[in-house]
Amino acid sequence: MSKGILVVVSGFSGAGKGTVMKRLMEKYNNYALSVSVTTRSPRPGEQDGKEYFFRTREEFEELIQKDALIEYAQYVKNYYGTPRAYVEEQLNAGKDVILEIEIQGARKIKAKNPEALLIFIAPPSMAELKNRLVGRGTETPQVIESRLHRAAEESQGVEEYDYLLLNDELEICVDELHRIIQSEHSRISRNLGFIQELRKEASQLG
Amino acid sequence: MSKGILVVVSGFSGAGKGTVMKRLMEKYNNYALSVSVTTRSPRPGEQDGKEYFFRTREEFEELIQKDALIEYAQYVKNYYGTPRAYVEEQLNAGKDVILEIEIQGARKIKAKNPEALLIFIAPPSMAELKNRLVGRGTETPQVIESRLHRAAEESQGVEEYDYLLLNDELEICVDELHRIIQSEHSRISRNLGFIQELRKEASQLG
Repeated sequence: MSKGILVVVSGFSGAGKGTVMKRLMEKYNNYALSVSVTTRSPRPGEQDGKEYFFRTREEFEELIQKDALIEYAQYVKNYYGTPRAYVEEQLNAGKDVILEIEIQGARKIKAKNPEALLIFIAPPSMAELKNRLVGRGTETPQVIESRLHRAAEESQGVEEYDYLLLNDELEICVDELHRIIQSEHSRISRNLGFIQELRKEASQLG
Repeated sequence: MSKGILVVVSGFSGAGKGTVMKRLMEKYNNYALSVSVTTRSPRPGEQDGKEYFFRTREEFEELIQKDALIEYAQYVKNYYGTPRAYVEEQLNAGKDVILEIEIQGARKIKAKNPEALLIFIAPPSMAELKNRLVGRGTETPQVIESRLHRAAEESQGVEEYDYLLLNDELEICVDELHRIIQSEHSRISRNLGFIQELRKEASQLG
């Protein structure tokens, strides 16, 4: 069995990443979704080990010391990181492991794991992103403005990703994400061992 | 509408490329299959414009002079080449254009068109390739031996391709080929114009 692929999914806040991930996990059983660890407080309804592992600052810094995180970053006053053990265990079991993280984390992952697959989810247009944020009816104009401003900033790093995935219709987006990840298993660079085998066999038979 | 992708498909002789191409064209209508031009004589049943365009050596050399071929190569005493007009016309019409050519041609295409997608079709094993050649019952042991020897040589260039596609079961192989080509449309490098648009829009809204 071949090793799984480490897949990083990022996207504009409001592009619907969370919904896409949830549906991908329901629809296909090839994937393992990494749960991040954070020092921020749980919001109402959030459970430890589900949305995040909630840890104190001291506990988080101990994880850093023990090299137990494959990446971590600090936003405002809180740490966010990806536990190493789960990711490695699932990759070795042949699962494709999905990290839903921001661009700083994505960069760190790619630097240490050049074979990681980076996918950026975007809305079909920024006007549509704004419509969605307004449509939620839960965000103040200030929050919407700050999210759009952030999207403009985030868009600066899109070229560092491998694929751009448009989230227009949920089911189509989820199927495309699945298709992209599965196709990636056929990359030459992920099949060098098999090619060596073929070559050896060919030289014996030919 | 976005431009089509130039797809080069190569593979060991006996790996079933021809059958895969035929089925791909029947099953999906996104593709245009390029017909090569050659100076070799038609075999019984071959029609001009279907398997190949059959031309004289003088006519072929005139095509070279007029830069009417996107690549050409000489095997034994015959020329083989890919007419430029059809490929460009179909790419501009948004079709993904498939060239079924050998590794020398693939290299020339990639050198001039770095955005071309190179796919190599292989059998699940060389023993299986030998079984298939023997199973046809039409090849002499000498021909089989020379094909396996050629496969050993061809396997030297596999790393220059982008994807390795195993032809174990025809329908699965055809669907994977379709999936790989369609996923490639989502590559960041093929969507830089759209990203520029998003960025411009974001900076206006944000």
